[in-house]
Amino acid sequence: VQRLIVFGASGYTGLELLRWLSLHPQARVVAASSDRWAGDPAFAHSATAPRGLIFVGHKEALARVEEGDIVLLATSAEVSLDLVPELLQKRSRVIDLSGAFRLASAEDFARWYGFAHKAPELLTEAAYGLPEISPPPPNARLVANPGCYATAAAIAVTPLVRRGLVEDGAPIVIDGKSGTTGAGRKSDEALSYSEVADTVRPYRLLSHQHTPEIERTVASAANKAVCVLFTPQLVPMRRGLLVTAYAPARQEVDAEAVARAFAEEYADARFVVIPKDRAPETGTVIHTNFCEVAARFDPRTRVITAIAALDNLVKGAAGQAIQNMNRMMGIDEATGLLAGGGGA
Amino acid sequence: VQRLIVFGASGYTGLELLRWLSLHPQARVVAASSDRWAGDPAFAHSATAPRGLIFVGHKEALARVEEGDIVLLATSAEVSLDLVPELLQKRSRVIDLSGAFRLASAEDFARWYGFAHKAPELLTEAAYGLPEISPPPPNARLVANPGCYATAAAIAVTPLVRRGLVEDGAPIVIDGKSGTTGAGRKSDEALSYSEVADTVRPYRLLSHQHTPEIERTVASAANKAVCVLFTPQLVPMRRGLLVTAYAPARQEVDAEAVARAFAEEYADARFVVIPKDRAPETGTVIHTNFCEVAARFDPRTRVITAIAALDNLVKGAAGQAIQNMNRMMGIDEATGLLAGGGGA
Amino acid sequence: VQRLIVFGASGYTGLELLRWLSLHPQARVVAASSDRWAGDPAFAHSATAPRGLIFVGHKEALARVEEGDIVLLATSAEVSLDLVPELLQKRSRVIDLSGAFRLASAEDFARWYGFAHKAPELLTEAAYGLPEISPPPPNARLVANPGCYATAAAIAVTPLVRRGLVEDGAPIVIDGKSGTTGAGRKSDEALSYSEVADTVRPYRLLSHQHTPEIERTVASAANKAVCVLFTPQLVPMRRGLLVTAYAPARQEVDAEAVARAFAEEYADARFVVIPKDRAPETGTVIHTNFCEVAARFDPRTRVITAIAALDNLVKGAAGQAIQNMNRMMGIDEATGLLAGGGGA
Amino acid sequence: VQRLIVFGASGYTGLELLRWLSLHPQARVVAASSDRWAGDPAFAHSATAPRGLIFVGHKEALARVEEGDIVLLATSAEVSLDLVPELLQKRSRVIDLSGAFRLASAEDFARWYGFAHKAPELLTEAAYGLPEISPPPPNARLVANPGCYATAAAIAVTPLVRRGLVEDGAPIVIDGKSGTTGAGRKSDEALSYSEVADTVRPYRLLSHQHTPEIERTVASAANKAVCVLFTPQLVPMRRGLLVTAYAPARQEVDAEAVARAFAEEYADARFVVIPKDRAPETGTVIHTNFCEVAARFDPRTRVITAIAALDNLVKGAAGQAIQNMNRMMGIDEATGLLAGGGGA
Repeated sequence: VQRLIVFGASGYTGLELLRWLSLHPQARVVAASSDRWAGDPAFAHSATAPRGLIFVGHKEALARVEEGDIVLLATSAEVSLDLVPELLQKRSRVIDLSGAFRLASAEDFARWYGFAHKAPELLTEAAYGLPEISPPPPNARLVANPGCYATAAAIAVTPLVRRGLVEDGAPIVIDGKSGTTGAGRKSDEALSYSEVADTVRPYRLLSHQHTPEIERTVASAANKAVCVLFTPQLVPMRRGLLVTAYAPARQEVDAEAVARAFAEEYADARFVVIPKDRAPETGTVIHTNFCEVAARFDPRTRVITAIAALDNLVKGAAGQAIQNMNRMMGIDEATGLLAGGGGA
Repeated sequence: VQRLIVFGASGYTGLELLRWLSLHPQARVVAASSDRWAGDPAFAHSATAPRGLIFVGHKEALARVEEGDIVLLATSAEVSLDLVPELLQKRSRVIDLSGAFRLASAEDFARWYGFAHKAPELLTEAAYGLPEISPPPPNARLVANPGCYATAAAIAVTPLVRRGLVEDGAPIVIDGKSGTTGAGRKSDEALSYSEVADTVRPYRLLSHQHTPEIERTVASAANKAVCVLFTPQLVPMRRGLLVTAYAPARQEVDAEAVARAFAEEYADARFVVIPKDRAPETGTVIHTNFCEVAARFDPRTRVITAIAALDNLVKGAAGQAIQNMNRMMGIDEATGLLAGGGGA
Repeated sequence: VQRLIVFGASGYTGLELLRWLSLHPQARVVAASSDRWAGDPAFAHSATAPRGLIFVGHKEALARVEEGDIVLLATSAEVSLDLVPELLQKRSRVIDLSGAFRLASAEDFARWYGFAHKAPELLTEAAYGLPEISPPPPNARLVANPGCYATAAAIAVTPLVRRGLVEDGAPIVIDGKSGTTGAGRKSDEALSYSEVADTVRPYRLLSHQHTPEIERTVASAANKAVCVLFTPQLVPMRRGLLVTAYAPARQEVDAEAVARAFAEEYADARFVVIPKDRAPETGTVIHTNFCEVAARFDPRTRVITAIAALDNLVKGAAGQAIQNMNRMMGIDEATGLLAGGGGA
Repeated sequence: VQRLIVFGASGYTGLELLRWLSLHPQARVVAASSDRWAGDPAFAHSATAPRGLIFVGHKEALARVEEGDIVLLATSAEVSLDLVPELLQKRSRVIDLSGAFRLASAEDFARWYGFAHKAPELLTEAAYGLPEISPPPPNARLVANPGCYATAAAIAVTPLVRRGLVEDGAPIVIDGKSGTTGAGRKSDEALSYSEVADTVRPYRLLSHQHTPEIERTVASAANKAVCVLFTPQLVPMRRGLLVTAYAPARQEVDAEAVARAFAEEYADARFVVIPKDRAPETGTVIHTNFCEVAARFDPRTRVITAIAALDNLVKGAAGQAIQNMNRMMGIDEATGLLAGGGGA
């Protein structure tokens, strides 16, 4: 049984990790850190947490890390940057759910995240783990777990770019809508129920840090430069995320080519579903690790619309981290992820 | 035209005051304070604010108060306690929407609000202004505007107690459900969308400060001691409040007596509606100054259920303040309150 | 491995059954009926349904029933009444999630459900299966699975009545709040998003069919007559249910006796949780089989307030049915119910 | 005082019309039809309806129409098609809030609405009334009131096209998000709270009937062909609508040109607001006739993002109809529309 350590276990993503990991037959959480609630039973703060687990402080969790452990970081980018070098030195393997290792260069972090990257030498080593698009190598020491929007966007757009269906050089527009847990667990008047209910609210126009992540992921997968405009929007729901991507089609493209691209690219993808007779929507995938995706070609405008929906806390965070973990463990990537959320 | 000054104009209640006051034909807001946004056009923070109005700071608003002004305080109890003595000294008349003058004695404030009252000598002077139950005298200098829960509870329960339908000495149980704007505009993790959506959450069990306010109001109106257990509960909606009150009936009571009590007590009440063929609910009264109320007698248990629903920001705060203001001005109490929210 | 047949598998309760049963290590769904979607993969209608399962029609499901099967009915009371006699004749064992077998007599059904009961001879045989209060006997052929409100109400009230803390003969008031999935999956303008959002709506005043179910359950458990007034209210959320029960205390009762009653009664209950430092709320238990419960004694009014919260589709329906099934199978009642929703 | 007749007064748009018209100083509703609730006081079905008004049946309303009346149709396109010729024959003037007269030709209706237009001869006469873009002539007999999405889209996109900021021939992508009242008041499982909460749901991909309406409006205003791809999406809220439009910029365009386009085009628009320091959002404009709009130029991708937010029932329907009515009456277009929803 694989030993696991979870840092940041009392945030929304951390608790979701605990929930799903409790279903995993071949891995076991040996420490879960929460500086906020260190000493408390996890169960006291979430009915879905495993009953026996007691939160420990960050320091205590770090002290428990052993060689060969897999460490899951559900921490902020700043905290991850501090922890990762030390964890690698302890010869543990790390899956970082923050954005700290998702981009290619320190310059990109300076521009999009606004901080000076402390461990730029690890950026080449870090494997970006989006199993359906860029599966991490089984022996990866450090996996950068993708952002929630970036996961949906890459799943929606990659088949089109990889198969050359998009007009060369044309920017791809990605319109994202997300529930509130994507913003984390915190006190913020702008995230209060009174301010969020009844509202659709665009934010971080032109500057969201998932923009370069999407470009890099799709470009790597398709071996072709990609230019993305990404607009995130907050909608009044707790979970769930939907992206609607728009790409101008190359001249010879038709509806059949678009449909075939998705059918073929995802024929073997365990967690990608192309719904019949309806568009993807978030309501049907929340609380599961599935991503619904579909695309339509419009002959009037010659624009391809590709839509992807997922649960930001599962396929967009904790579930995907477990998929990556399974690959690092050399076992079936769906282990522990089908039961209770799209059963066996 | 009556001059008005509004303090605390950028909170939810303050903005609601501005909205309704813009409909009032005989009163005009000459200053609206917001320390937070002093200098900004009110309109920049709320599309429903009057276009020409610029927020001023508290000090500036205070400087503008003249003899004969009516001053509306949408401030915290602490701020109201500081302001009221000074405002009365300036010979303005005050409607305080906070709880600072709603109870009978300094001891009650110490027990239920947890503070030492700074102006206990004003407590006897303060008129509790719930127009349907205890209308303020036309010449009142200081009106304590009722709490939102207390308004609904008093409207639901008073007819029963006043007419002797409730078993003597029996406690009356009041189960309240409120939307989030009742908690005010603030940063608080517990009020974030992620924590409030999908939740019914009881709070301040046995200790909510509206408890003594309800008891005092009903007891004064009925001239009879009343004992209330009040349980507030947060539900996932922005506006609206419903109380379900339960009272054991005296022996001779029947369904007809209960129905008649409400029909008669509220025959002339402009803002109380007894719905036909359905129970009161919040959805039909939000954004209006109406309170829906109805009661049912259960012959099996001999318990009377009385239900009242209203908009916590209108009949539970700003609208009721305007009703009181109209009475202080000696004009029709419905002035400015019917248009656009239950029109003429 | 126990063979299972599920009828009515495409409603909210049916789909929840499929989800949880996919986690069960010792039971397997061999047929799941949906007349509406017969022939479709269950997965096409719910991402949480097991991938291989195809819905069959009711007739086909019936044909597949074999001696020794456990049949779970997530059907309407009318359909259950038709099916149960035939299923028992086939020597299968039945867990009925409808109300068809929850009351004591045909007269009760006529009064509270408004229909003439077709199989009154089975009413004495039917075991009411609320494991924490009235566990079904291991050899039961027919288990009536409790209503969602009735489950929460019985868990909240039984300890008080059983220990004689409630004033003799006094009615117990139960104020319930439920999300919309409790009303089932259907077209109904009154249940549309536009009519439910922003609303708290009392319904079926004095006449809800869970009233006699609560009375019967508590009375049987406490061996004492009980009189209940129950008021259900719809609140804007999909899942979750909270009841606030109010009972006048007997003279010698104090806060300590109330706290002890719950601590002792539920010391061994696997799915009942008494939260520390806060009241029960729905947000922390949805998607789990746990019920949060707590009570407070108010010395001012001498009323006991007991609050219980649960997920109407899990502990209030599908999860509880699986608890009962586990008892009928003679295995640990928590089997398959802790993982993923309050893990091992 | 202008006489008004409202058909379809008990739907969401009809009730919103009644609410706002009760604020209008120079017009009076003399009949309001609702076949469903004929004979009932409007107030019984909506606390915001004027107190004295009784719904009449469609026939009765028709009988009351006199020469010179303004008739507002909040009916389905089918009903409007039946009524309009008869109303014009009675020499009343009509504002049709349905889609029945919004497109240019019978062919367009066949293609996008799926019906054979019964009165194609009126299509040239019908004036499309979007005051900020295409104000109806003061003497119009028949005004087609715009669709809610089309209003927001035209306000977002027209300045860009009119000023030649968009690349010639490039399709403009419009991503729309709307609350549920846009779908009307009806029984529909897909619109039930249980199915809508927690969901973002794209619908009518490539085929929504507002597509040609947007193209026609912008093209007429800019005198230039326009090609639009429109994707509507349902989000969990009752009111409010936001469109995010994406257009590739012509080569010489920069951020300043984009900002200036909006500032200048809407300098005199009473109901268009360009928010400072934040993007448009729905929460700040619901319950008002204001439309928030703003645009950003992205130098990386050279795409212009233009965002508009409004209340689908006010600026997207009833409020805009009153703006058009005011113009037909030759009075200030804002009459009755500022009070109570962005006061005087």
